[in-house]
Amino acid sequence: MPLVRISLRQGKPTEYREKIAAGVHQAMVEAMNVPAQDRFQVVTEHPPDGLIYDPTYLGIERSDDIVFIQITLNSGRTMDQKRSFYRRTVQLLEKEPGLRPEDVLINLVEVAKENWSFGNGEAPYAK
Amino acid sequence: MPLVRISLRQGKPTEYREKIAAGVHQAMVEAMNVPAQDRFQVVTEHPPDGLIYDPTYLGIERSDDIVFIQITLNSGRTMDQKRSFYRRTVQLLEKEPGLRPEDVLINLVEVAKENWSFGNGEAPYAK
Amino acid sequence: MPLVRISLRQGKPTEYREKIAAGVHQAMVEAMNVPAQDRFQVVTEHPPDGLIYDPTYLGIERSDDIVFIQITLNSGRTMDQKRSFYRRTVQLLEKEPGLRPEDVLINLVEVAKENWSFGNGEAPYAK
Repeated sequence: MPLVRISLRQGKPTEYREKIAAGVHQAMVEAMNVPAQDRFQVVTEHPPDGLIYDPTYLGIERSDDIVFIQITLNSGRTMDQKRSFYRRTVQLLEKEPGLRPEDVLINLVEVAKENWSFGNGEAPYAK
Repeated sequence: MPLVRISLRQGKPTEYREKIAAGVHQAMVEAMNVPAQDRFQVVTEHPPDGLIYDPTYLGIERSDDIVFIQITLNSGRTMDQKRSFYRRTVQLLEKEPGLRPEDVLINLVEVAKENWSFGNGEAPYAK
Repeated sequence: MPLVRISLRQGKPTEYREKIAAGVHQAMVEAMNVPAQDRFQVVTEHPPDGLIYDPTYLGIERSDDIVFIQITLNSGRTMDQKRSFYRRTVQLLEKEPGLRPEDVLINLVEVAKENWSFGNGEAPYAK
């Protein structure tokens, strides 16, 4: 049930963006119990003035390769699962497509299970 | 007070996108007590690699016509209202512009009433 | 920790959009205790049919200059802080770039502190 929004600077090849999207999904599957098939992602490219970031907030040195990852998902993940997910995401994205860990910003938005319909107007998670 | 984000593949005519936006709003009015005038929507088109979906998750057969509908709205709708909304949305979108029910993905994000300002810096729903 | 999404019609100069982004951030710093360096924003431009608004909902007269500001941030701000933020935002945007207060729509989405990673896969706010 997650819906993932990935925002980055324009100008990278398609394959680069595909690897980011794949890596984020893989980390969700490994660390937060997301089914492998449960993949729904929006990846957007932005001009320099459309993606604004602080280059040193919290002492982390960011570059123009920064990626914002915002994930809406069901509430209920433990703090440990969330921490594991953050770590696993930067590991996978560092491997492919070679993203610096400093350039990965993640935000989770939690919602109730009944707040999803995956097609046909059904609410499969609502009891 | 809802803010609606509708994401779909690029390449459809303007009228097609307008009908989707209108249908989603109509379903909100009918099923979730949203005032008819309370319409604020962002509709974005994406290239194939910018809108990633699983074609069979939960046994639902999706196509490239898939539409992601993410709605931020006040909390408080009942489960019945949400279910009605999902059903009504796919009904209306199937009629116009002719969207397959399988291709409609909906997500609700609920917030507090005080989390809105609709202009002039006022918070009309905050008590 | 806020992640800010600003959506407006296409066709304004870069400087105009930059002033909106700067004004929103400044209002957050002044009214909601956001650190000055904690600035992460996505600014998107949309064609007329991509940004739909009601021109008179709640008696507020909106124009095509409308700006949607959606902010994901930690929960915990008081109602007074939120009200101050709404007021301060329209004040600053009216000064620069000269936005009409009627054209500023704001929405807050609140999340838990542990729902953020600002780089390196760390969760600095999780206890």
